[in-house]
Amino acid sequence: MLKLYYAPGTCALASHIALQEAGATYTAERLDFKSNQQNSPEYLAINPKGRVPSLVTDRGILTETPAMLAFVAQSFPQAKLAPLDDAFAFAQVQAFNSYLCSTVHVAHAHKGRGYRWASDEASFADMKRKVPETMAACFSLIERNMLKGPWVMGETYTICDPYLFTLSGWLEGDSVDIATLPKVADHRKRMAERPAVKKVLADES
Amino acid sequence: MLKLYYAPGTCALASHIALQEAGATYTAERLDFKSNQQNSPEYLAINPKGRVPSLVTDRGILTETPAMLAFVAQSFPQAKLAPLDDAFAFAQVQAFNSYLCSTVHVAHAHKGRGYRWASDEASFADMKRKVPETMAACFSLIERNMLKGPWVMGETYTICDPYLFTLSGWLEGDSVDIATLPKVADHRKRMAERPAVKKVLADES
Repeated sequence: MLKLYYAPGTCALASHIALQEAGATYTAERLDFKSNQQNSPEYLAINPKGRVPSLVTDRGILTETPAMLAFVAQSFPQAKLAPLDDAFAFAQVQAFNSYLCSTVHVAHAHKGRGYRWASDEASFADMKRKVPETMAACFSLIERNMLKGPWVMGETYTICDPYLFTLSGWLEGDSVDIATLPKVADHRKRMAERPAVKKVLADES
Repeated sequence: MLKLYYAPGTCALASHIALQEAGATYTAERLDFKSNQQNSPEYLAINPKGRVPSLVTDRGILTETPAMLAFVAQSFPQAKLAPLDDAFAFAQVQAFNSYLCSTVHVAHAHKGRGYRWASDEASFADMKRKVPETMAACFSLIERNMLKGPWVMGETYTICDPYLFTLSGWLEGDSVDIATLPKVADHRKRMAERPAVKKVLADES
């Protein structure tokens, strides 16, 4: 039995949707970030990074969204969530997810978590001011060069799609007008119509 | 025929070593960062992100280190650079590489590339001052919780090892004393003895 630790509004949504799409049997446990539960001794024993998501499996605990998404795709091959028999196509999926993880999510995180990388309030404010610009640049690249349409990888839905949906859900709060990104906007609408996405959004709300 | 674009001192070293360890037939083309060659029209046509590494394959171009490392492991299975038949073990490999990519490399990048996330010189200086602390924290977690020893995943050398070697090579420049990290220091020594590592370091120098 798989157990996902998540918090609403975080990147854990991607893995949550992927588990649901895969038809996995799993439970989802919510952490309360307001009371800093992610840094409680109990949770740090599960994930010493103090972050979500974490996925408890029979073999041990996994962290890091790109790794968890690929694990779900490989563990439930019948759901066809990644091109598992094609190393190049699989690498394209991973490259997309790696970009979201290491560049897009990081750009967003400078809005509210500047203390990770600096010490002065003035620096935090400076970082925060730049987020609309950096997120717009990231999503402009996604719109022009990466999102093939209708799904990220083209005609086939993959583990890239719930991850993009998760991060594109931050655009409004980051003051990026999604109307300037028609393919991303269409992708959001298409995702919102999927039963697995509706179910997970209801469960997290 | 594979072609790797790299620049010395960058994270492209990890993929370069992996290609050499895999026994791949490849060429390596150096970019000159001093003349900003990574943002030339010619290179942006290859990688619109203007970063290294990029890997040109018969099927198209790949970017993002974790994706490229897994691609090398999957394309040269006889080199046994990842546990390809074990989804959980493969996910552990990917989780490690994802952490290096999205947290450790990002922490390091705040030393010289603060302009990615802020606009004021004072913020850049603030970010730069914090790098020794953030890099020490990242590598303390690696030392305590992640590096099994002698290799990252234990007894078996994987695609995690050249990536860790690449980032641990930045510690001295980031003012982190590697003597406080005995397992990481041992890993560096062990890596430096490998013929593939010696070959690549000579080729890049």
